[in-house]
Amino acid sequence: MRGAHALLHTLVDGGVDVCFANPGTSEMHFVAALDGVPAMRPVLTLFEGVATGAADGWGRMTGRPASVLLHLGPGLGNGLANLHNARRAGTPVVTVVGDHSTAHKVHDAPLDSDIDSVAGTVSRWVRRSATAADVGPDTASAVAAALGPPAGIATLILPADASWDDGAAPARVEPTAAAGRGALDADTLEAAAKALTGGEPCVLLIGSDAALADGARAAARIAAATGATLLAETFPSRSERGGGLPAVPRLSYVAAAARRQLDGAAHIVLAGARSPVAFFGYPRQSGDLLPEGCDVVTIAEKYGPASTALQALADLVAPGTRAPAGPAGRPALPTGELTGASASAVIGALLPDGAIVVDEANTSGVGLGQATAGGPRHDWLTLPGGAIGYGMPAAAGAAVACPDRPVWCLAADGAAMYTISALWTHAREGLDVTTVVYNNAAYAVLRAELAQVGAEFTGDGSGAVARRLLDLDDPTLDFVRIAEGMGVPARRAETADQFADALRAAAAEPGPHLVEAMVPPVVR
Amino acid sequence: MRGAHALLHTLVDGGVDVCFANPGTSEMHFVAALDGVPAMRPVLTLFEGVATGAADGWGRMTGRPASVLLHLGPGLGNGLANLHNARRAGTPVVTVVGDHSTAHKVHDAPLDSDIDSVAGTVSRWVRRSATAADVGPDTASAVAAALGPPAGIATLILPADASWDDGAAPARVEPTAAAGRGALDADTLEAAAKALTGGEPCVLLIGSDAALADGARAAARIAAATGATLLAETFPSRSERGGGLPAVPRLSYVAAAARRQLDGAAHIVLAGARSPVAFFGYPRQSGDLLPEGCDVVTIAEKYGPASTALQALADLVAPGTRAPAGPAGRPALPTGELTGASASAVIGALLPDGAIVVDEANTSGVGLGQATAGGPRHDWLTLPGGAIGYGMPAAAGAAVACPDRPVWCLAADGAAMYTISALWTHAREGLDVTTVVYNNAAYAVLRAELAQVGAEFTGDGSGAVARRLLDLDDPTLDFVRIAEGMGVPARRAETADQFADALRAAAAEPGPHLVEAMVPPVVR
Repeated sequence: MRGAHALLHTLVDGGVDVCFANPGTSEMHFVAALDGVPAMRPVLTLFEGVATGAADGWGRMTGRPASVLLHLGPGLGNGLANLHNARRAGTPVVTVVGDHSTAHKVHDAPLDSDIDSVAGTVSRWVRRSATAADVGPDTASAVAAALGPPAGIATLILPADASWDDGAAPARVEPTAAAGRGALDADTLEAAAKALTGGEPCVLLIGSDAALADGARAAARIAAATGATLLAETFPSRSERGGGLPAVPRLSYVAAAARRQLDGAAHIVLAGARSPVAFFGYPRQSGDLLPEGCDVVTIAEKYGPASTALQALADLVAPGTRAPAGPAGRPALPTGELTGASASAVIGALLPDGAIVVDEANTSGVGLGQATAGGPRHDWLTLPGGAIGYGMPAAAGAAVACPDRPVWCLAADGAAMYTISALWTHAREGLDVTTVVYNNAAYAVLRAELAQVGAEFTGDGSGAVARRLLDLDDPTLDFVRIAEGMGVPARRAETADQFADALRAAAAEPGPHLVEAMVPPVVR
Repeated sequence: MRGAHALLHTLVDGGVDVCFANPGTSEMHFVAALDGVPAMRPVLTLFEGVATGAADGWGRMTGRPASVLLHLGPGLGNGLANLHNARRAGTPVVTVVGDHSTAHKVHDAPLDSDIDSVAGTVSRWVRRSATAADVGPDTASAVAAALGPPAGIATLILPADASWDDGAAPARVEPTAAAGRGALDADTLEAAAKALTGGEPCVLLIGSDAALADGARAAARIAAATGATLLAETFPSRSERGGGLPAVPRLSYVAAAARRQLDGAAHIVLAGARSPVAFFGYPRQSGDLLPEGCDVVTIAEKYGPASTALQALADLVAPGTRAPAGPAGRPALPTGELTGASASAVIGALLPDGAIVVDEANTSGVGLGQATAGGPRHDWLTLPGGAIGYGMPAAAGAAVACPDRPVWCLAADGAAMYTISALWTHAREGLDVTTVVYNNAAYAVLRAELAQVGAEFTGDGSGAVARRLLDLDDPTLDFVRIAEGMGVPARRAETADQFADALRAAAAEPGPHLVEAMVPPVVR
């Protein structure tokens, strides 16, 4: 058996049955082998960042790794930003990077580069298969490493000859020894209980799998019984919300606002979240958001099984407390002007039951959390890694993972342009993704950051040159045409009513749609 | 003076007066400083790969480095493929990667990653400025390192505090000691002369600056006087052609064809080119394209000043020989079916005097070299690094570098989608770029490679699953709509006549245009 066949069989046997691919010559044996392994679903993307972002979305929804097929070092480079995001989300991913054949490496051919070093910056596990016989066992190790715990990115570098040579066999994926990670420590739980019930102000900050339904319920029980302030991390990789689940407010992205949320806390209990730090450093400000003297108890590390720990803690401090019911009720459908806020209300009013929301709305997403908290049950994916351009790719992956659920992708215009060709994959695969692009013709978040960092303009003092680098209005992008050019039906909405109509029309018809929401920038 | 100001002044004083930028929060002080340094032209791109590709195009046309401004590790990742291409082209580039402030690095914030390791894979020089006071000298070193010789990529990692702190001053760029590189060695020239005149079959392979006018003329003199077979490397970074210059055929990308071109050679003389190797390795084939027993004489290393060496060699072996006149005359304008070949004839018939052609036409570019060799004087840029997605970005850079010259960008559909947002930058800057997208609805080159690597299909043997990963026809991309969505006027051409009309219309109007050429795939 050729190495490529052993690779595919090992992946499929290990539960990795989708491959987001942008292949090249060195991957042609992998591609050719796909016909013999119909259990593997290949999904073509036109850019590697779409493949890696899709794998992130797929992995977040399934808990299993997708595979990604990339062409040499430049392909890995193109996929790197969304692998960064997947790493920060704790998503399992098996990245397969094709390389030149071993004999060809000595020639330093035009496409040769140092794949191993680049892969090392995002991967928990990197290996280069030496021969076809190694491919099966290496692939099995890659899947196990990606699954963890903790889950993460495993990168298998596959020389073309290891793929095309005979002498390979599939291997079985053996779970890694969990190494005691996540085992509940009675002393730690006791310390957390003390922090929560000692009468001093306490914050309970949850993340990782604690943002799913069971964790959220346990956290809400704890908060109800102890009076602790319950917060979720700023960008949870996946939250379960709506349908009566407790609403968990998130720690603000804006450092000053986050400080206010944490102000006065004497203790913070962390469950699947890290001690809070600012997204960026600013002059004369500490990046550490913890109030001075605040004591930290970690009952579960980030990426660890935090939900179990939270439930044990709830049984300790809130044995008789039931999770309070979450908010119920959708916002009224607004009419008139379309703004980030009114768009949020429309989304809250219309979000379908069982939806998966992929949120890269950035500044235009104001009020989205509140507008949707009382609606039907849904999942919410955000951007823990901060590298914009994840939304439309992750939506593709989520839709492939959950073909029976509608996916709503909320994308800011600037962010959308990094990986815009994801729309073609939405069309090619007939995915039920409705993409909203908020067109405010600006990198609005950077306008805010420009003010925040305390930059002063020299020259004529107007900052006109700088501001033009943050504007997208000359020319203004037309996302309806762009989407149509990639095979996705699209409509423009200039009022809240048109926005609602467009979303309803998209929901009424299977397959991908795009709605361009013309909104004013939040920051001018 | 703040670090950011010192950086900009040092760049401009060192001849680096354009910055292709896709900034984020950690680069806001750089952005704010631009108003105070009007000699620096900032050019916004919507994706980092456009910025790095533009810097490649700019550097090839000017011989000076452009600067590129990237946001943290993910921004560098997005720009990596076109930095790879710039590295393989030997283009000088100063890459500035913003990082978190030094104090913030300890927090492992969401966007933190190992920038240094990634930068090291493409850069000849990497440094991280420790303080604002270091920024001036570090920038000067970066410019000097990028200029070389040999030219290459210098990456300056700029922590936000080094940018925002005071205490900086501009520094002067001191040329690096050329370290004897490129000095002519009499013995080597003598050995080359012997190889050329010894009566045995000899190939003269030129590249780097030897592909420019003076080098091509010297090479043609040598070939005329000695009977040597004159070839250029497969993908020269920049060639000067047309206007009576000698036509220099290129070594084929297809390994078997390249072998035929080199067949029988007893000697090969290399001037600015490497000993030829195949682009990819294939089963049971050597990647070394040299005929067995062929002796190699290198008169100038790749990236070195090869033109000078060639002229000295010409004076040795062809003292009385003048450079033969190149071909003259354009092809007749074809009518009827639009194919890669007829499109090449249309381009040959209409190419404007002084044009810069950025060639990423791939399989559709059949016959382009011949069709244009007898036309007016022009420059031709190709893809030495092989990472597709360089064309439209490099065209932007070439047009910024040479505002008085028309740029024709010839892009294959698959390649175009990697960095499609370059079109927006064409529009924003009003660049005189005419982009031809060959829409054959396939990764046609991969169809050829799939056959070439000897892959066999299992399953039903049809290879249907594999082939679908190489097809772009479900749905077919509509580049007219995509271009219009990004502010570039566009037309579709379905016949050779329509193609000619569209090119004429584009040439008649300043600013960017796109022509979608509907062609059948060369490989079915």
